[in-house]
Amino acid sequence: MTGKNIQLDKNGNLKHFLSIEGLSQPLLHTILNYAESFATVDKRPVKKVPLLRGKTIANLFFEPSTRTRTTFELAAKRLSADILNLNISTSATSKGEILSDTLRTLEAMHCDMFVVRHANSGAAHYIASQVAPHISVINAGDGRHEHPTQAMLDMFTIKQHKKDFTKLSVAIVGDILHSRVARSEIHALNVLGTNEVRIIGPHTLIPKEIEKLGVHIYHDMNSGLKDVDVVVMLRLQRERMRGALLPSEDEYFKRYGLTNQKLKHAKKDAIVMHPGPINRGVEIDSDVADGKHSVILQQVSHGIAIRMAIMAMVMGQINRDENKEKKK
Amino acid sequence: MTGKNIQLDKNGNLKHFLSIEGLSQPLLHTILNYAESFATVDKRPVKKVPLLRGKTIANLFFEPSTRTRTTFELAAKRLSADILNLNISTSATSKGEILSDTLRTLEAMHCDMFVVRHANSGAAHYIASQVAPHISVINAGDGRHEHPTQAMLDMFTIKQHKKDFTKLSVAIVGDILHSRVARSEIHALNVLGTNEVRIIGPHTLIPKEIEKLGVHIYHDMNSGLKDVDVVVMLRLQRERMRGALLPSEDEYFKRYGLTNQKLKHAKKDAIVMHPGPINRGVEIDSDVADGKHSVILQQVSHGIAIRMAIMAMVMGQINRDENKEKKK
Amino acid sequence: MTGKNIQLDKNGNLKHFLSIEGLSQPLLHTILNYAESFATVDKRPVKKVPLLRGKTIANLFFEPSTRTRTTFELAAKRLSADILNLNISTSATSKGEILSDTLRTLEAMHCDMFVVRHANSGAAHYIASQVAPHISVINAGDGRHEHPTQAMLDMFTIKQHKKDFTKLSVAIVGDILHSRVARSEIHALNVLGTNEVRIIGPHTLIPKEIEKLGVHIYHDMNSGLKDVDVVVMLRLQRERMRGALLPSEDEYFKRYGLTNQKLKHAKKDAIVMHPGPINRGVEIDSDVADGKHSVILQQVSHGIAIRMAIMAMVMGQINRDENKEKKK
Repeated sequence: MTGKNIQLDKNGNLKHFLSIEGLSQPLLHTILNYAESFATVDKRPVKKVPLLRGKTIANLFFEPSTRTRTTFELAAKRLSADILNLNISTSATSKGEILSDTLRTLEAMHCDMFVVRHANSGAAHYIASQVAPHISVINAGDGRHEHPTQAMLDMFTIKQHKKDFTKLSVAIVGDILHSRVARSEIHALNVLGTNEVRIIGPHTLIPKEIEKLGVHIYHDMNSGLKDVDVVVMLRLQRERMRGALLPSEDEYFKRYGLTNQKLKHAKKDAIVMHPGPINRGVEIDSDVADGKHSVILQQVSHGIAIRMAIMAMVMGQINRDENKEKKK
Repeated sequence: MTGKNIQLDKNGNLKHFLSIEGLSQPLLHTILNYAESFATVDKRPVKKVPLLRGKTIANLFFEPSTRTRTTFELAAKRLSADILNLNISTSATSKGEILSDTLRTLEAMHCDMFVVRHANSGAAHYIASQVAPHISVINAGDGRHEHPTQAMLDMFTIKQHKKDFTKLSVAIVGDILHSRVARSEIHALNVLGTNEVRIIGPHTLIPKEIEKLGVHIYHDMNSGLKDVDVVVMLRLQRERMRGALLPSEDEYFKRYGLTNQKLKHAKKDAIVMHPGPINRGVEIDSDVADGKHSVILQQVSHGIAIRMAIMAMVMGQINRDENKEKKK
Repeated sequence: MTGKNIQLDKNGNLKHFLSIEGLSQPLLHTILNYAESFATVDKRPVKKVPLLRGKTIANLFFEPSTRTRTTFELAAKRLSADILNLNISTSATSKGEILSDTLRTLEAMHCDMFVVRHANSGAAHYIASQVAPHISVINAGDGRHEHPTQAMLDMFTIKQHKKDFTKLSVAIVGDILHSRVARSEIHALNVLGTNEVRIIGPHTLIPKEIEKLGVHIYHDMNSGLKDVDVVVMLRLQRERMRGALLPSEDEYFKRYGLTNQKLKHAKKDAIVMHPGPINRGVEIDSDVADGKHSVILQQVSHGIAIRMAIMAMVMGQINRDENKEKKK
């Protein structure tokens, strides 16, 4: 299987980071372990390690995103890499032909890594299949497909609080249909052997195929949250409101917005997560977002550490023997 | 008083730099002294010191400004810090709630310093009151309130030429009403014990309350400039012309534009300053801007040194014992 | 002549890099030799040399260009310089007076180098004539005048494949009238003693004066490409189509687009170059662009090395005695 997986090189080491689907449990644990060592770098007075000094990383954002771009930029700088921010409007590269010329040009400039965000599902895989052998590609979100670094930072956050995935019940709440975060998280939770993954949301926002991933579907918050250890709230894209998919914001909040009242159905020590930025009063009540169960800001911090770990790994700058030993 | 002043930590050291109002004379002298040592760094072949290596500074500009942002960016780079440029439209953060989420997120990314420019008076103070204890905030201009780094670079420029503030007469000319620069400068000149501060401008552009700061008000240039040592010209925001506050540009120039003719009323060795960018032929004649009394370009150079000094001080990277000794 | 040439200092060393016109053959060879040593830096695991550490370079782009700006930014970063990206709309600086204030301000911030792109021919020369003595200016394209770094990277590419310019026949194809690249290349090929330079294009796109540069003019591809060693295709600015200067894109491609069929008239080992980005199916067929004669992506790589060499030379950071020895 390693041979077919474009994400791994012939020795089974991480070469690209495109989707959680297709990665093994030992590899995810390796990423989580490295991230733990980088989490301490962030707290040092000098938040810099020289692992990627002299490497050039291009942020290829075909879809705008200040927040995610910033975390990759910070991760790159703290690894001492040089970073180029390239905002490429999708219109200018609507033809695959021209996109491939852009990639060839950046390769010829001796870039070492592309961090790609694109509105089309599969864009990062496509780019990884096209680039020269010395280049690594990281998926920073592609259409409705995956957002694997977000999923890994969430796994890291869960692990900090809950240790053993095989004993956990996790609920993901909201607009599953349009969410690449949800898709990556379900895969990651499955790979890590999570006991139960639940999906909660209105019929219109839960795709039929999702059941194939082994999740349990709920349309009611109180029963869906019953005794869960982790609640992952998704951001509601307000522009969906305009279509027929959703009732009003008020109605949505009443049914699926997370309040302390609804949260009482979860376990007493449940943690609440959200990929941010949050819509207070739409999918989450301020009392919950700022309350004792919330680990939302820890997720942001972990996002830097996870991205440092993944960037260093795909560049081969972390000891791979050590990597293999951990797999044993 | 130290306890109440949000700008100082419990040992009386500079923690934030938000306004000149509330700072002591010894502290302003300490800033000026440190800036003097940084002014030489700028002239070295390698214009870099490692004082803030591994620190992350976020330029939070809610109001666009290439010039001021650039000087902070250069100061940060010459101190070896990593810098993030974030242009945040005010509309997107119109609710205080959402602004505070943005701040929390940047804190969670382990930023060390926010450089803030905002259209609302008091925004930098508000942000400083909200941030985590490890973060320092520098005000890069808030509404009509203060622009304290500009005032300090002007004090530095005056000191280079005039030495003793207690013997000086300084005139500030133009649109005082809308000028955060004027407000910060009046405070700085007062704290440094300047003998006389004069304000010159049309009735419509001089706010009533300004007299409380102990300044003398003039509406005529010839009498206002009589025997002054320093003339500070303010930039005329041309958009004010549209309102009823001002006559035509020509009329304004005739009455308040600085010409060599009017400058003859000042002392022979008077210096002419301007925060830039200048409107030639509106508030200042080219013969004056480029003439022997002008120190306008020296102000720009001093701006980098002053910002390096303040950034290093709020980060605690300058020897504080030395600091205290200088206060004695 | 050295005395009159603003590009050279009084010792004949490169101070600015504004146009190929006026530079000597030994100097061009010196640039090509240095670029060769930098080309290896780009292939090292750590693509960085400390030659310009602590120097500040300002990218002054009055005309937008992601591609050229990016190569200068990468070259600067790999030389360890600090770089400021300033996009200045031409409208804001339409008065020379205000442009000169912008330059004075950047000088006062102790910038060391300006990389200038401007829609007006002669803009870089004008700026070089205005700046303070410690500042170097590099022309990154001025109107229809010159784009000298592009010409040098093309000369470098030719030299890699063809060695001796005095035995070469080179054809430049397309819109000569609007092309600063063509103008710089003709000068460079002449200075390097190229045996024959040909120009191929429709009457409407070949300016009359070009014959003074000693080129041979062709309006037919088959005869123009006959036995040439090098083919330089120019990018067709599609907006020219709207005017009366050109027939349709299809018609243009039929007559002047480079196909393998037409390329058969050139020598068997001819190389095909293009400054990029290419318009596939307009001035060049994909079979040629991606074929064995194409060196288009090599040009991109050489662009970084050439710019590193020129930036280091104008800053005096390359041994000038060595430079002189090479001239002997």
